[in-house]
Amino acid sequence: MDWDVIKSKLDTLLAQGRHSQLRGALMMLNPVDIAGYMKELDAEKLLLVFRVLPKDMSAEVFSYMDSDQREMLVGSIGDAEITALISEMFVDDAVDFLEELPANAVKRVLQNTDPKMRGIINQFLQYPENSAGSLMTIEYCDFTPDMNVSDALKNIKETGVDKETVYTLYLVDKQRKLLGTIPLHKVLVAASDTMLTQLVDPGIISVNTLDDQEVVADTVRKYHMLSIPVVDGEGRLVGIITSDDIMDVIEEENTEDFEKMSGLAPAEESYFKTGLLRLAANRLPWLLILMFTSIISGAIIARYESVLAINILLSASIPMLMDSGGNCGQQASTLMIRGLALGEIKFRDLPRVLWTEIRVGLIIGVVMSGVTLVRLLLLNGAALDLALVISASLFATVVLAKSIGCTLPLIAQRVGLDPALAASPLITTLVDASSLFIFFNIASKYIL
Amino acid sequence: MDWDVIKSKLDTLLAQGRHSQLRGALMMLNPVDIAGYMKELDAEKLLLVFRVLPKDMSAEVFSYMDSDQREMLVGSIGDAEITALISEMFVDDAVDFLEELPANAVKRVLQNTDPKMRGIINQFLQYPENSAGSLMTIEYCDFTPDMNVSDALKNIKETGVDKETVYTLYLVDKQRKLLGTIPLHKVLVAASDTMLTQLVDPGIISVNTLDDQEVVADTVRKYHMLSIPVVDGEGRLVGIITSDDIMDVIEEENTEDFEKMSGLAPAEESYFKTGLLRLAANRLPWLLILMFTSIISGAIIARYESVLAINILLSASIPMLMDSGGNCGQQASTLMIRGLALGEIKFRDLPRVLWTEIRVGLIIGVVMSGVTLVRLLLLNGAALDLALVISASLFATVVLAKSIGCTLPLIAQRVGLDPALAASPLITTLVDASSLFIFFNIASKYIL
Repeated sequence: MDWDVIKSKLDTLLAQGRHSQLRGALMMLNPVDIAGYMKELDAEKLLLVFRVLPKDMSAEVFSYMDSDQREMLVGSIGDAEITALISEMFVDDAVDFLEELPANAVKRVLQNTDPKMRGIINQFLQYPENSAGSLMTIEYCDFTPDMNVSDALKNIKETGVDKETVYTLYLVDKQRKLLGTIPLHKVLVAASDTMLTQLVDPGIISVNTLDDQEVVADTVRKYHMLSIPVVDGEGRLVGIITSDDIMDVIEEENTEDFEKMSGLAPAEESYFKTGLLRLAANRLPWLLILMFTSIISGAIIARYESVLAINILLSASIPMLMDSGGNCGQQASTLMIRGLALGEIKFRDLPRVLWTEIRVGLIIGVVMSGVTLVRLLLLNGAALDLALVISASLFATVVLAKSIGCTLPLIAQRVGLDPALAASPLITTLVDASSLFIFFNIASKYIL
Repeated sequence: MDWDVIKSKLDTLLAQGRHSQLRGALMMLNPVDIAGYMKELDAEKLLLVFRVLPKDMSAEVFSYMDSDQREMLVGSIGDAEITALISEMFVDDAVDFLEELPANAVKRVLQNTDPKMRGIINQFLQYPENSAGSLMTIEYCDFTPDMNVSDALKNIKETGVDKETVYTLYLVDKQRKLLGTIPLHKVLVAASDTMLTQLVDPGIISVNTLDDQEVVADTVRKYHMLSIPVVDGEGRLVGIITSDDIMDVIEEENTEDFEKMSGLAPAEESYFKTGLLRLAANRLPWLLILMFTSIISGAIIARYESVLAINILLSASIPMLMDSGGNCGQQASTLMIRGLALGEIKFRDLPRVLWTEIRVGLIIGVVMSGVTLVRLLLLNGAALDLALVISASLFATVVLAKSIGCTLPLIAQRVGLDPALAASPLITTLVDASSLFIFFNIASKYIL
């Protein structure tokens, strides 16, 4: 059925106040789509639809709602209802939600939850932002080495109802130290008296609570995992992170790289949720820095005023030199930043990368300066020495831009800076200034 | 244990020819790590380690190996061994591998596989590249509506051994039409006489064989799925795609966007695997296009030569104007391209986005031109009219750049072009030319 049809049916049921039919209709939908439908409702209708939802669905729908929709909802329901909601949610979703609430609201809500849940949530709220600890959930099944397959299946049946994932079994000892992992499908196809220890996967792949989410995403991706166990400093299992949350992390990290490469401070919220002043504030720092560095290029132009006066083609070539240099540098730096992010390029590859980029630069330089030489001679009717000076400058600019573009990100990574942040916006400035410098030096030597 | 220690132990066992111990040691490792270890071996040792691997691991390790390692291996083993390998691999991995082989080798290999497998592989090889069909696997469990929980578990036990994922049960009718999906954990916790039809999730989320991988990734991410069913034109279940493959798709799509935004043709292979000429060829088209468009900016400079002659500060301001315009435009376009990719911004938001960007541009423009005005007056001792002309041009450039930067990607998307490709590299050129045009017009009006 078409989404617009579904929406209009829900709208009708809602408008006519046929609540039990509305509940029935909602039960046919995916919780993500219900949250999507609720996005466009006003506060009153939002509350109504939310209360019509079956209890076991409302917590899941709530976890897919936008933060301002949640805020609206929280404003209209009482503390008791919020507390009930939180106890129905997975711990990671509940923590996400509490992090959005004002501090006094969090305190009020937590006072009403049971002490065990309160303890867990408080602990979770203390993990650094974007750490494995802040991402993990505690809804997983753990098992001990003395269990066999039929024990394990019984255990899942008894406790597995509200587990976010039961698809990997975690084997722990009495101190909760993680001994190994077992994919559920191995358990399902094994004879019922098989000991779990016989089914354990070779090697334990896990992350630490304090590991950055980027490390978590890289590990999950590398080992093709559905979920990854999180251990504390003593190797004890404290939680798991599931692959659906990892996908969000991957997109978040990519967005951050895109933003940094364009000289934007990483945004906390999506575009439309960010205020005007914040949008401006995220952009201004780099714009101001780059504005000041571009004054260097301006100063170089000013210094060589007399050279520019020789022929108007020299001034007219400045945009071409600056743009081509910037583009060449950005191409090389993008490949490096991506290669670093995906683990395909490391700092120790610098000599190899530099050698590759210099040769690529030579090829590209020959083509671009060749085309430019022909253009200047034939189309602009330039004198040979003038055309040669401009083409040679372009050639040098291309090779230099490729070299700078590949080197800076690797060095940035090496000294602990973010390659996307440190390298990209600066490369243009650096290449601009050096290409103008080369240009004027060649020009003043061979034309004057 | 440290990876270097593991590696040196394996090296020792390999060098001393202690094959059964080597096999034992390898069995303790994750297949991904074994493939990582084999990456650094020469052809002879590679073959040896590969043959030492237990049969059930070798196909999995093979699917994690690099394409040139695979090629090396395929060169040293016979057709019979390759055929055996393929029949052990998951269909999607086997197809991936076959797509790398030369056509005559594929034919030879397929002749030896059993007719059913051959038929499936041939069908898979025909799906368009990057379509859902080319990504999917057929290793899944399907069930019929007449089954109850204990039937289902028995079915999994009998057939589930080599299923890539059994974590979602697919309910199909006699025509294999997909009726619904059931998460395995619901089956595990239900009473054994519960009918599967009672456990079905509301709504069916699926993709079509011909859907692009970007659609697949977006859907899986939106609905937080571990795997997604793939149906043909008649709604019949033909395969599934698992979330670990989706993560690779997400990174691939992001890499493509990064490349396009930097004017690079998307690379087929990673940096070091791409030849020098290909690296150059991927970069040249946009460099040449942008080089030619920058001639427009040059022509504008040439046309207003007489204006530049008035004061050297005018020429010196060109890099600042061009760079600031380019940076402002890129910031806005990056936010749009990301918003479009993540589904947060749509074409219908254009008026809202444009209005936001104009206001952000006004704020940023005031700050940047204010700073510039003060700098010109105090540091450069410029005359007031000159300083005002440069600042006003900067102000107009910023607002214009923000407007162009947010508009072009949305329009590109609307007319079916890739926003990352069509918008990004062109914006700089467009902004350059218009900012120079504004600059010279203001200057010639108010200073001459």
